[in-house]
Amino acid sequence: MALSKKPVTGMKDIMPEEMVIRDYVIKVITETYSKFGFTKIETPCVENIENLTNKQGGDNEKLIFKILKRGEKLSLENAKEEADLVDGGLRYDLTVPLVRYYSNHSNDLPSPFKALQMGNVWRADRPQRGRYRQFMQCDIDILGEATNLAEIELILATTTTIGRLGFKNFEIRINDRRLLKAMANYAGFEEGDYDSVFITLDKMDKIGLEGVTEELTGNGFSSDKVEKYVKLFEEISSSDAIKGITALAERIGEYLPTEVKDNLTEIITAVDATKEADFKLVFDPTLVRGMSYYTGTIFEIAMPEFGGSCGGGGRYDEMVGKFTGQNVPACGFSIGFERIILLLSESGFKVPGADKKIAFLVEKGMSPARLVEVMKDARDLRDKGKQVLVVKMNKNKKFQKEQLAKEGYEEIKEFFINPI
Amino acid sequence: MALSKKPVTGMKDIMPEEMVIRDYVIKVITETYSKFGFTKIETPCVENIENLTNKQGGDNEKLIFKILKRGEKLSLENAKEEADLVDGGLRYDLTVPLVRYYSNHSNDLPSPFKALQMGNVWRADRPQRGRYRQFMQCDIDILGEATNLAEIELILATTTTIGRLGFKNFEIRINDRRLLKAMANYAGFEEGDYDSVFITLDKMDKIGLEGVTEELTGNGFSSDKVEKYVKLFEEISSSDAIKGITALAERIGEYLPTEVKDNLTEIITAVDATKEADFKLVFDPTLVRGMSYYTGTIFEIAMPEFGGSCGGGGRYDEMVGKFTGQNVPACGFSIGFERIILLLSESGFKVPGADKKIAFLVEKGMSPARLVEVMKDARDLRDKGKQVLVVKMNKNKKFQKEQLAKEGYEEIKEFFINPI
Repeated sequence: MALSKKPVTGMKDIMPEEMVIRDYVIKVITETYSKFGFTKIETPCVENIENLTNKQGGDNEKLIFKILKRGEKLSLENAKEEADLVDGGLRYDLTVPLVRYYSNHSNDLPSPFKALQMGNVWRADRPQRGRYRQFMQCDIDILGEATNLAEIELILATTTTIGRLGFKNFEIRINDRRLLKAMANYAGFEEGDYDSVFITLDKMDKIGLEGVTEELTGNGFSSDKVEKYVKLFEEISSSDAIKGITALAERIGEYLPTEVKDNLTEIITAVDATKEADFKLVFDPTLVRGMSYYTGTIFEIAMPEFGGSCGGGGRYDEMVGKFTGQNVPACGFSIGFERIILLLSESGFKVPGADKKIAFLVEKGMSPARLVEVMKDARDLRDKGKQVLVVKMNKNKKFQKEQLAKEGYEEIKEFFINPI
Repeated sequence: MALSKKPVTGMKDIMPEEMVIRDYVIKVITETYSKFGFTKIETPCVENIENLTNKQGGDNEKLIFKILKRGEKLSLENAKEEADLVDGGLRYDLTVPLVRYYSNHSNDLPSPFKALQMGNVWRADRPQRGRYRQFMQCDIDILGEATNLAEIELILATTTTIGRLGFKNFEIRINDRRLLKAMANYAGFEEGDYDSVFITLDKMDKIGLEGVTEELTGNGFSSDKVEKYVKLFEEISSSDAIKGITALAERIGEYLPTEVKDNLTEIITAVDATKEADFKLVFDPTLVRGMSYYTGTIFEIAMPEFGGSCGGGGRYDEMVGKFTGQNVPACGFSIGFERIILLLSESGFKVPGADKKIAFLVEKGMSPARLVEVMKDARDLRDKGKQVLVVKMNKNKKFQKEQLAKEGYEEIKEFFINPI
C-alpha cells in the first residue's frame, strides 16, 4: 500500500541543518534564562477542550485541532454537534496551559514562580510562507510578583538571550494598557469604544497618523475626539523614552494615575542601566498588543532585520483568577522562536564551537579483527570530543568524499582490508 | 467560569525538579550520539491518518488520538463512521514518521543516513503507574547501511550514552529473527505457526522452560516438536555469547545460514572490543521483540535496577519499501527515555556541574537608583556563570529564606532601601 510521503498540510519536517541551529538556540535560551532563576516546566500538548474554548484565546480558539473522543465515549449516532465528538484539543499557546499548571500546582511551587516553557503549539491557520500549523513557542513568565521587578527581569533576561544569539540594534517597545486607556479617556472616547479605537491605533505603523485619523472618523467617531486623540501622538518625541513619557503625562494630567507613569519610568531606568545586549528601549504609545487579557505593562521586540515583531508580552494579572477565582499577579514575555530560527538560517548562521567532523571510510569485506582496530581509532577520537562517522567505502569513492565534504566533514580517513 | 485544573486524563505536568533531569539526559544523549555522527531531525506530531493505520504499528494502531477534520471538510450529517470524521492522528511512535520522512527527503539526505529523534508520542492506553498517554521516545536509526556496521554503531552509541548517564552492569541481549526462524524450522514447526510459537517463547523469562513446554503443547503442537525445540534452549550456555552461538549453530547445522551466525559473532566481537560503558553482551535465543517488521538482528537493554527492558531495537529492511516500493536497509535502537528518567529520579540523581544558585532579597519600596545597583550586582554574578534569583523580600523573611534553601539556593543576600 502506497502511503503519503508528505507531512500533513501546513506542518513541516525539520532537516538536519535546521535542527543544529534549533538545538543551539534552545541551549542558549535555557542557559541564559536559568541564570536569571527561571525553571523549565512542561505541560501536555493536549488540553481539555473546555480550557481551550473559554474565550481567553481570542481568535486562536477558532483554529484548534480537536481530538476525537475514544471508545464508548464516542457516540456517532447521538452526536448533534462537533462539541459532542471531542474531549481534547492541541494547545494553541503556552499561556493557558501555564495558568492551568500554576493553578494545579501552586502549593508545590516557589513564590514568585519564574517559569520557562519551550514547546510546540498548533493552529489550523491558512498555511503561508514561513508560517506553519505546528510551531515552537518559547515563553517566560513570572507568577506572584506584583511589582515591576517582574517586567525588569523579563526584559533583561529576554534581551540578554537575544543578544547572545548575535542580534544587535534591536528595539524593545514598551507601553502600558492603562496609559492607552488614559489617552483614549482624555480624548473623550467612551470606555465601550476603547477596543475599537485600539484596533485602529494598532495600525499606526502601517497606515500612519493620517490613516488612523481617517479610519477613526470613518468608524463614526466625532472629529473633535479624533483630533484631540491623534494630536497626542503627533507631539510625542520618541528619541528619549523617559522624556516622552513625562511629556505625555504632563499633557493628559489627571487622566493618568501617577503609578502608571512611575511604572514605565522605573522599568526603563533599571533596564537601561543594567542591560547587557545592544538594544534600545523605546516608549511607544501606539503599542496595543492584541490579546485582551493584558492589564498593565506591554512590550514587544522589534527587529530591523525582520521588519516586524519578533516576540512580546506583558502583564496579565487577572487570568489566574479565571481558573481559581483568586487573581495572582502575572507577567510574561514570549520570544518569536520560529522567526529567530528563520533569521539565523537565512543569514547563513554557523553554530559556534561545533565539534570537528571526521569521516572514516571502511573498505568492504574487512575482517572482524581489522574492523575492531578501526572502531578503536574512532572511539579514541570520539573520546577527545571529535564527531566521527564510520561508513562503508562506496565504489564511487570520489563522489562519496565530495558528499561528505559538503556535509561538513573536514577530515576523511580511509581504512583498507589490509593496513597500509 | 471555573476551569479544569488537572491535565487531561493519563497525561502529566512535568515539575521543575524533573525537568532539570530531563534536560540533562537530553543533553547527554544529543552530545554522545552526535559524536557517533548521528544528526537530529524532527517530524510533526500529527501524521496523516492513513499512515498511522496501515498495519505497521500493530496494537498501537488501536490507541491513536485522532484529529477531527476542520471547516467544510467536516460533515457531521454525512458521516457514517469514525473514519469519515478524522484526517490526522497523533503519532504513536517515531519509526513510522522516520520512514515517511526518509521517503520524502532521501534525495537531500546523506547515505547512509544516521538519524536521532527525540520527541513525544501518544497512546490512549489504560493509564497506570509510571505510564502516561504522552511520553518521550528517543530513537536512533541508520538507513542505507546493509552491513552490521549499523548494528555495531547503534549498540556502541547507545551503550556509551547509557554509561555516561551513570548506569553500570546492564546487559545488551542480542538475537536474530532469522535464527529464531531457523530454530523453529529445525524443530519441525510450520512457517505459518512461527508467530504463535514466538509469542509463547517470548514468555520464557516469566514462565520458564516448563511453562513454555506446557503452553506450546496446550496450543496443540505435537510433543516431539515441542521437546526438540525446548531442548535447544536447555543446552545453550549463556555465560559466553560467542560460544553459545557457535554451539547452537553446530547443533541446528544447515537450518542456519552461515551469514546469520557470522552476523551475530561479528557484532559481539566488535562491540566487546571497543565498548566504553560497563555492560555485558548476552546472546539470548529467546529474545523475540514484538514488532513484526524486524527482519534480522534484534536487541534489548536489560537493567537489573529496573527488572525489565529499558530500550531495544533491530533491523527492519523492508519497511521503507512500504512507502516507496523500494526497500532500503534500516536498523534502529530506541532508548526507554521515560524509564531512565524514572530510574534517575527515584535514585535521587543530582545533575553534575549545575550552576551555583544565589538569591537576592530586595526590600520593598527601593528607589530606582538603588534597585539599579542591586541589578548590576546580579548581572555581574550572572556573567560569571552563577544563577541569580532577584525577588522582593517578604514580611516573613525567615520562612522565605527557608523555602529558598529548600529550592537549592546556597547563598542568600539581602538588599535594603538604604545600603548598610
